[in-house]
Amino acid sequence: MNSVKGDINDIKKRTAGKETASGAQAFSDIRSRIQPVQSSLYDVAQKRLDSLTKPLGSLGRLEEFARRIVAITGDTMPMLDKKVIFTFAGDHGVTADGVSAFPKEVTPQMVFNFLRGGAGINVLARHAGAEVVVVDIGVDHDFGDTPGLMSRKVVHGTKNMRIGPAMTRAEAEQCLQVGIDLAREYAKKGYRIFGTGDMGIGNTTPSSAIASVLTSTPVKNVTGRGTGIDDAGLQRKIAVIEESIALNRPDSKDPIDVLAKVGGAEIGGIAGLILGAAAERIPVIIDGFISTAGAMIAYEIEPATVDYMFSAHFSVEQGQRAMLGKMGLVPILDFSLRLGEGTGAALAMQMIEAGVKIYREMATFGEAGVSEKEAGS
Amino acid sequence: MNSVKGDINDIKKRTAGKETASGAQAFSDIRSRIQPVQSSLYDVAQKRLDSLTKPLGSLGRLEEFARRIVAITGDTMPMLDKKVIFTFAGDHGVTADGVSAFPKEVTPQMVFNFLRGGAGINVLARHAGAEVVVVDIGVDHDFGDTPGLMSRKVVHGTKNMRIGPAMTRAEAEQCLQVGIDLAREYAKKGYRIFGTGDMGIGNTTPSSAIASVLTSTPVKNVTGRGTGIDDAGLQRKIAVIEESIALNRPDSKDPIDVLAKVGGAEIGGIAGLILGAAAERIPVIIDGFISTAGAMIAYEIEPATVDYMFSAHFSVEQGQRAMLGKMGLVPILDFSLRLGEGTGAALAMQMIEAGVKIYREMATFGEAGVSEKEAGS
Repeated sequence: MNSVKGDINDIKKRTAGKETASGAQAFSDIRSRIQPVQSSLYDVAQKRLDSLTKPLGSLGRLEEFARRIVAITGDTMPMLDKKVIFTFAGDHGVTADGVSAFPKEVTPQMVFNFLRGGAGINVLARHAGAEVVVVDIGVDHDFGDTPGLMSRKVVHGTKNMRIGPAMTRAEAEQCLQVGIDLAREYAKKGYRIFGTGDMGIGNTTPSSAIASVLTSTPVKNVTGRGTGIDDAGLQRKIAVIEESIALNRPDSKDPIDVLAKVGGAEIGGIAGLILGAAAERIPVIIDGFISTAGAMIAYEIEPATVDYMFSAHFSVEQGQRAMLGKMGLVPILDFSLRLGEGTGAALAMQMIEAGVKIYREMATFGEAGVSEKEAGS
Repeated sequence: MNSVKGDINDIKKRTAGKETASGAQAFSDIRSRIQPVQSSLYDVAQKRLDSLTKPLGSLGRLEEFARRIVAITGDTMPMLDKKVIFTFAGDHGVTADGVSAFPKEVTPQMVFNFLRGGAGINVLARHAGAEVVVVDIGVDHDFGDTPGLMSRKVVHGTKNMRIGPAMTRAEAEQCLQVGIDLAREYAKKGYRIFGTGDMGIGNTTPSSAIASVLTSTPVKNVTGRGTGIDDAGLQRKIAVIEESIALNRPDSKDPIDVLAKVGGAEIGGIAGLILGAAAERIPVIIDGFISTAGAMIAYEIEPATVDYMFSAHFSVEQGQRAMLGKMGLVPILDFSLRLGEGTGAALAMQMIEAGVKIYREMATFGEAGVSEKEAGS
């Protein structure tokens, strides 16, 4: 699996990408629709939280979740009744360089597993009362009319970024647009909270590349073992990412250039979903490392998106930390997860919903006839 | 609220406590029924986890939760369908010394709030699909026949430990027995997992005393602000605990002596519930600081109880850390909670159940037709 194959076949089966003049315009439109949340809404929410039968602030982060949901939605009595997790699937040409412990065919195999309900994300989304939407945005497999699969294919896998750009700029923009459109569609359908997820053998490699470029951190400090490569594999992976960045010279001031040259289709879909969620004032839970790379792209396009993000969990992948730090996000859970798919987002969704239920359902001191804190203590 | 009242009235209304010769015998019986879990069951569970469609170990702590539930219950396909949280309520004579930000009458007021479903624990237990059992084990209020309240009163509040022992040894043993009996009763009713909780104005004070004595840590290092006292209040609280320990000289080698002299009724109930859970092979989720003090008592009575415990969350109260360290428990959540009642246990219950559902419901590589990890990678 060390042999590096030429990517002639990849080139042949790719959709011809063209630079779209309308691309920049489209994203300036969505950017203009994204506003920072009104901080006065945090105070409105805290006032209610402080009237509930508990010592002030004693529910810690649950109170933070409630405040943020109020501020994001602008609804002073929000309810998270319709919940959905989007699992974006894509393949990566760079797997030809032996950067993953699993063979590439696992991506479509796992897509079928998602559709049958047997994967981790299915179990945890059911537990959270959330639906799972599986989006083929870049799998190198022809699914035809597979029931239950949302077909939004932009590429048949990316090209090998060690040899050239993973995608054209137009393809990267198309991936973002897929996410933006899904966010709008599901907002219209009445969904109240989104989670992001990914499936793509090899996708910690572009995620580390994005983390390195956008946080100005050496590749070795943002690269981990993914699904489980050994020491030699890790060294190979670091070298491949370093070579890819040196060859493609992604512009760290241009997140779409970074997404195109060293990114991936599912990462673009996630970034677009986050942009769309922010525009629709829908809270969006960022899963683990790959989703955080998508969030980083969205954040670089429009920093106000961060007001709409929740970080689900600390990933085992070390590269996530630098990106969280830059965005100022503190994850909800720390379970040593490294599966992806949206599994961490599903778990965190239950905790965020707990905060909202506290806000909605607890009795106030007045209602319960409970004495408040004594003066001076 | 600084005035220290005499406790003549307290003495009058207390049930006369007698040293029971049968006490030690009773606890040697329950101790003999508690066995460490069979470590071979961890391996049995991990074997199934490793056959599921995910990279090995990639679900981190969720896998740990599943392994432990299998080992605790001895059931290789466990299900957490019936869940209950026990909220033990008791009052504390030491509140006369101004150690809490809330007046003592809040304890019975909150008991009524629990019974009406308006408290934090009610909201979070509903969210987790768990029942709440409210146990009056030591409230200084006559509830009469209050529907929904489990009446197991041992004391009408403890005595002020700054002046003498909080309880007699017989009372402390009775509190333990209440918990042991509840565990047996609810195991028989088919409940599969327990959570612990507490309500008792002033109860961080005895919890800090227990933490100090049983972990040999200076009082000031295990004492926090409880429901929200100010700096002067904190200094007073530390002084009260130091005086109480100096006066009563609890024997750190005798956990029942510690519980009696500087503990509380609800802490004893929690300790007993944990002993009973371990004897019945029921997993038990330890809530925050007060519950961890109860767990510490149970652990000192029988160290094998720790095999049956899950620590729900890192409390804001610093005294919890020393006890967790001594028992070797790592909390599931870190949400800066300091409410008690079992709120953290309810949240953690959802995460433990997520682990069990992963174990039960995910497809195996064989079932899903997914390729496994490549050799050598």
